[in-house]
Amino acid sequence: MIEQQTITIQTQGRSTIDITGEIEQPLRISSIEQGLCHVFLHHTSASLIITENADSNVRRDLENYIARLVLDGDPAYLHDQEGADDMAAHIRAVLTQSEITIPIQHGRLALGSWQGLFLWEHRYHAHRRNLTVTLTGGPA
Amino acid sequence: MIEQQTITIQTQGRSTIDITGEIEQPLRISSIEQGLCHVFLHHTSASLIITENADSNVRRDLENYIARLVLDGDPAYLHDQEGADDMAAHIRAVLTQSEITIPIQHGRLALGSWQGLFLWEHRYHAHRRNLTVTLTGGPA
Amino acid sequence: MIEQQTITIQTQGRSTIDITGEIEQPLRISSIEQGLCHVFLHHTSASLIITENADSNVRRDLENYIARLVLDGDPAYLHDQEGADDMAAHIRAVLTQSEITIPIQHGRLALGSWQGLFLWEHRYHAHRRNLTVTLTGGPA
Repeated sequence: MIEQQTITIQTQGRSTIDITGEIEQPLRISSIEQGLCHVFLHHTSASLIITENADSNVRRDLENYIARLVLDGDPAYLHDQEGADDMAAHIRAVLTQSEITIPIQHGRLALGSWQGLFLWEHRYHAHRRNLTVTLTGGPA
Repeated sequence: MIEQQTITIQTQGRSTIDITGEIEQPLRISSIEQGLCHVFLHHTSASLIITENADSNVRRDLENYIARLVLDGDPAYLHDQEGADDMAAHIRAVLTQSEITIPIQHGRLALGSWQGLFLWEHRYHAHRRNLTVTLTGGPA
Repeated sequence: MIEQQTITIQTQGRSTIDITGEIEQPLRISSIEQGLCHVFLHHTSASLIITENADSNVRRDLENYIARLVLDGDPAYLHDQEGADDMAAHIRAVLTQSEITIPIQHGRLALGSWQGLFLWEHRYHAHRRNLTVTLTGGPA
């Protein structure tokens, strides 16, 4: 059994957004109880990560860390016409992920207690980001 | 055909552990000959990598490299109550992976000759780490 | 339905190669219209990334960035007998990916408009790189 759905997430500019709930939505109306949930982001200046969902300082630290690791507006960048954040956004995306697969158990995402799935907007400005969620599996 | 199994790995604190054999265990008792093996780690302060399984200096170098890239106890971290290694562990996990999919061919993991699947414990202390292995596919 | 095929890509030494067309080849002769395409690289000194396919300066900047992030011939490396680029290649591979899954829609890879799938050769010299493409899914 395979089910596919497109989801759009509105970001508010550079930051991480917990999208676990949005990704679980197609699962709620599906009859798949055991299987895999694949999440794919159709953009190269945002990315997906799994990280701690409890203390929001974890995501603040991730943001601060990556901002030091990947400089905005580095004069070395050749690809610089779309703003200081654009090439940095592509690098951040390559160092994290465009797609993540999570197991489905008992009709739910089988994440660890402290795991959340986050969309990381790397551009300064708000964007509409498209994702495709593919569910595969069957009854338990 | 889909089969799912939970595996627990006992780590000995910060280091990489070759878990290729443990992940192949469910495959040995499965009738899936051709397909995919998805490995998911239910934690945010450890991660999964595929790297060279021959010279163990490769993993020593990886450890030394990432220790310089992601500082333990960086005074900039806001999330610092669980020890100097905790926020560093979350960053290391985000820069590597929480989940990896490997093809199954002839009933075995179709890894390259020099590839091994490793669990990377990023915390100083030993932990019990839970993984879910999902096999999909069928006879050859 | 599951189909598996091995593909070999000849690289020209350190650089990124757009392999989107090569990966779509097995899809063209497949009857899978909706599903997932999993691409696995059987090597630990090259990797896979999804990034912008329009301005080739993006890949030049990625190359320059990672060359500064991961030093070739760092005297700290213990694994140094296969050349200055070898351990650096393993680190670059671990910081990017060995495997990527892309949704299939209407019998095609459902990439975003600006997304391409690239093989990143991290060694100085040309290599033959083996990939396994696994298609799962069914008619739309």
